[in-house]
Amino acid sequence: MTYCLAIHVEAGLVFCSDSRTNAGTDHVNTYSKMHEFVLPGQRFFSLLSSGNLATTQVVVQRLRQDLETPSAQSLWTVPSLAAAADYVGWLSADVQRVQAGRDTANTVFEASFILGGQIAGESPGIYLIYPQGNYIHESADHPFLQIGESKYGKPILDRVVQPSLSLEAAARCALVSMNSTIRSNLTVGPPIELGIYRADSLQRGECLSLHDDDPFYKAIADGWSAGLARALEELPRFPWEGGASS
Amino acid sequence: MTYCLAIHVEAGLVFCSDSRTNAGTDHVNTYSKMHEFVLPGQRFFSLLSSGNLATTQVVVQRLRQDLETPSAQSLWTVPSLAAAADYVGWLSADVQRVQAGRDTANTVFEASFILGGQIAGESPGIYLIYPQGNYIHESADHPFLQIGESKYGKPILDRVVQPSLSLEAAARCALVSMNSTIRSNLTVGPPIELGIYRADSLQRGECLSLHDDDPFYKAIADGWSAGLARALEELPRFPWEGGASS
Repeated sequence: MTYCLAIHVEAGLVFCSDSRTNAGTDHVNTYSKMHEFVLPGQRFFSLLSSGNLATTQVVVQRLRQDLETPSAQSLWTVPSLAAAADYVGWLSADVQRVQAGRDTANTVFEASFILGGQIAGESPGIYLIYPQGNYIHESADHPFLQIGESKYGKPILDRVVQPSLSLEAAARCALVSMNSTIRSNLTVGPPIELGIYRADSLQRGECLSLHDDDPFYKAIADGWSAGLARALEELPRFPWEGGASS
Repeated sequence: MTYCLAIHVEAGLVFCSDSRTNAGTDHVNTYSKMHEFVLPGQRFFSLLSSGNLATTQVVVQRLRQDLETPSAQSLWTVPSLAAAADYVGWLSADVQRVQAGRDTANTVFEASFILGGQIAGESPGIYLIYPQGNYIHESADHPFLQIGESKYGKPILDRVVQPSLSLEAAARCALVSMNSTIRSNLTVGPPIELGIYRADSLQRGECLSLHDDDPFYKAIADGWSAGLARALEELPRFPWEGGASS
C-alpha cells in the first residue's frame, strides 16, 4: 500500500509521500513516490503515485520521454494544470490497458496519482487522478487530497487544514498525518518525502527525505504524541468525576 | 457502516458505539448497537454489533431467548468469557447460515461483534468475534478492539491507550476516537453510546447516550479540536524557519 497527500494553502502547496511498496507481504521494498518536473520560472509539477508499481513506473517514464520528444504532448506543452491532469490520466489509463491486454491472472494494474503545481499565469492547484483516468481538483472547503491508505491520517487533516494555514504549519500537519498512518499500518513506511512549493515561485521549494531515525522526524513524532496526551488530559471531566484529574 | 470499540484497562472496561445504520445511501436509520446482559453480582456482558442489521438483531434476540429457556446454553450458563465468545460466534454463524439459505441475491449477511465483561471468579476481558464465528481477545500490548469503520479512530488509540490508563481517561479516548470517525465518515453517526464497567463490580457502570448537541459531547469535541491545534502549534519548526512561529 501507499499513503500520499497534497495540501493547497494560500501560500502554496505541500506534497508528502511514504516510500514503502509491497507485493503481498513478502516483496517489501522502498521506492520514491514523489516525482518532480520543473521548468524554472515557467512551470512546476509534483506527481505522487500509488497503486501498481509497474504501472506508475511506466507512467513516470513516459512523462519523461515525452519531455524529450519535441513533437509530443508533454508537461512542458500542456496549456493548463487541468490539461496536465487530463494528460496524466490518459497516459495512466493507456498503460493499464496495455498491461491488462497481456494479463493471464486477473491482476489489478490500477494506479492513482496526485498531480499538483503551477504553470506561469495560472494559480497553483492539485488534482487527484483516478485509475480510470478521470480527475478531481481540491477546493477551499476541501483543500487537501489523499491517495492510498488514506483513512488513518484523515481526521487530523479534517480538523486542522484550511487555506489560511502557513505552508510550514500545513507541512507539519502532513507529517503528523503520515506518522499516524505509519504507526497504524505496516504497509506504509519511511522514508517520508516532503516537498514544499511556494505560490508563484515556479521553482522547487524545500524538500526533505525523512528516515525513521532522523532527529527532526523523531522530534515531530514524539512532540505529537506528547501533545495528544496533553490534549486528552485537558478534556472536560465526566459528570461523576467531580473535577478530579485523570 | 458502524464504528464500535472496547478498551480493557486495569480498572475495567470501556465500551463505545455509534448508532447509524444504512442500507445503501438511502435507508439511513438509528439503532443502538450496544446490548448489555447483567446478572448483578454474578456476571456482566456488553455486546457491540456491526454488520448486517437483520443478522445482529436475530443474534441479540436469540441471546435473550436463551436466557429465558432453562435447558438452553445461555450467557447465564456459559462457564467462562471465552465460552461466551464461542457461544455468540456459533449463534452468529448459525443465523448467517439460515439467512444465506434463503438468499437469492448474493447478499452479505456477515456480522462482527465485540463481547466484553466479567464472570465472577474470572478477570474482565474483551473478545472480537469475526463473521466466521471465530474470535480473538485483547492483550496488554493491544488493549483495545474495534469493529466496523475502524481506521479513522485507530491512531489516537495506538498512541495513547495502555493498561495503566484510568477508566475515565480511556473513556475520553474512546469518545475522541469516535468523534474523529464521525467527522471523517458519514456512515458513522450519533447518538454515541458509552458504557463503563468497573473491574469486579459485576454490575452496570456509568452509561451515556450522547447526541450531537449534547453539551458534554460538544465540549469534548471542541476541546479535542483546540488541543490538536495547540499540539500542532507546539511542534518543532523546520530548519529553515529559524524558530519563527507558524
